[in-house]
Amino acid sequence: MIGNDYLFSDIGIDSVGFYAPKYYIKLKELAVERKVDPNKYKKGLMAIEMRIPDVNEDIVSLGLKAGYQALIKGDISPKSIDALFVGTETITYAVKSVSNIFAELLGISTNSICQDVYNACAGGTLALLNAIALIEKDIIKKALVISVDISSYQVGSPSEATQGSGAIALVISKKPRVATFGEKFGKVSGNVDDFFRPANEKNAKVFGHYSVSTYLNFQLKAYDDLINNIGDFHADYYTFHAPFSKLPIKIMQQIIQKRWIKHIQNLPRAKGTSISPTKLPSESDLNFVRGLYLPLKEA
Amino acid sequence: MIGNDYLFSDIGIDSVGFYAPKYYIKLKELAVERKVDPNKYKKGLMAIEMRIPDVNEDIVSLGLKAGYQALIKGDISPKSIDALFVGTETITYAVKSVSNIFAELLGISTNSICQDVYNACAGGTLALLNAIALIEKDIIKKALVISVDISSYQVGSPSEATQGSGAIALVISKKPRVATFGEKFGKVSGNVDDFFRPANEKNAKVFGHYSVSTYLNFQLKAYDDLINNIGDFHADYYTFHAPFSKLPIKIMQQIIQKRWIKHIQNLPRAKGTSISPTKLPSESDLNFVRGLYLPLKEA
Repeated sequence: MIGNDYLFSDIGIDSVGFYAPKYYIKLKELAVERKVDPNKYKKGLMAIEMRIPDVNEDIVSLGLKAGYQALIKGDISPKSIDALFVGTETITYAVKSVSNIFAELLGISTNSICQDVYNACAGGTLALLNAIALIEKDIIKKALVISVDISSYQVGSPSEATQGSGAIALVISKKPRVATFGEKFGKVSGNVDDFFRPANEKNAKVFGHYSVSTYLNFQLKAYDDLINNIGDFHADYYTFHAPFSKLPIKIMQQIIQKRWIKHIQNLPRAKGTSISPTKLPSESDLNFVRGLYLPLKEA
Repeated sequence: MIGNDYLFSDIGIDSVGFYAPKYYIKLKELAVERKVDPNKYKKGLMAIEMRIPDVNEDIVSLGLKAGYQALIKGDISPKSIDALFVGTETITYAVKSVSNIFAELLGISTNSICQDVYNACAGGTLALLNAIALIEKDIIKKALVISVDISSYQVGSPSEATQGSGAIALVISKKPRVATFGEKFGKVSGNVDDFFRPANEKNAKVFGHYSVSTYLNFQLKAYDDLINNIGDFHADYYTFHAPFSKLPIKIMQQIIQKRWIKHIQNLPRAKGTSISPTKLPSESDLNFVRGLYLPLKEA
């Protein structure tokens, strides 16, 4: 167990914006088209629909709307932002950075730090880490981090049903109004070919069970590193990267089985009357989680 | 004037590695081939030769050698590195990050933060800023930042003679042995189409005088922002991004003319006997400067 002093710094999320294309495909209908059991998508992936960009939508237009919404919702002047980071794996321009385009379109000062951060699904999270540290070091005051992706897999492939597109924008600052970050992090990375897109190809390649076991393996390693850094803890909520909604449930099961079992005697005892029946998150809960971590697709 | 307390933090460059391909083209010979006056390259660009990668060299092999050299030269165990950042504009893999490949090949812990940072020529410098802040925030201890590029312009174009390829690796840590960074920074960014590479094209497009005036304009703005943040100062040395060697001289001239002229009465007076004749840097000086900032090509 660790105290709140240790867990929370004074830097966090001050405002949130979100945007997804208005067009979508119901996975029930896709299943019929692909001649697979609809339960494979509904129960196997826990995915209900996938958002498809309009013909004139790209990561610039998607991310712009999310960024604009984050500023408007938080009543934040673009002039108060002095860093704009983009996390994406949808490479749109070579050399030129998307962050500079967003900064100009949103009216953010030219005395800003702009950078695009790439590491497959982790780009957005890494950009958040950069923002936290740069604010702490007083190099910047307030960062807008836009995570945006349009994922695309081969038509008819098993990954096709896990496609999606959308954007999240987070304003990161001191004295945040939405949430604060912990002081310490667990971290893990690796050179694994479970997911990649060959240069100049539209579709990424994913390898079913191998990709899933890589996801689970790396999430457990990250959990171990977090424990190494902050000691044992039990949190009220856990948030996971969700390439599709079933994966956070799988990893939570593994954390319980493989990491908590040694502490089973020490778990807090609850009165029978205070326990609700165990239930899976509702579809709308999952859509929110998937939404928040949507830009972080495929570990 | 500002004191050293303000200028220098305890985070900086602990070790440096460098690698460039062994093959090169003498620009004197290129001039003959292109039927241009050799002085256009020698005096106009102050460029002498350009390095060309071998057929089996890419940014992974170039950057790996620089990274390895930085570890060896500094006698630094790869196990002590917990972050590996890559700054590049030579997009090699979509989705997959080059930083993870370097980390594995160099034997760096999987409990590392790996990220590729893109913003044209500024990727490497932005990665340095991230590293400084993440070390200060104690999220990481020691970062290896590899800046690597292979630049390529259309055969016969005016930019052709400014091509180059190579890699620099810097180990960033507390108690650095080579150099420390200042506490404060000037920063500027913008959405300018003076330099870009259309997706799926091998060659970047540069626009001669427009690109040069953009470079000069943005360097002056960055200087102004630095002055805004730390006040007037006079440094013993200045380092500039050098897309080609003549540009640092042009910008230093402009800083003297456009920024220092108001302070001309306040400049320190030196005795006549202590002044050496003004001279341009030697070719080897310039090659070193170009080398150090080579991965930061084209503003």
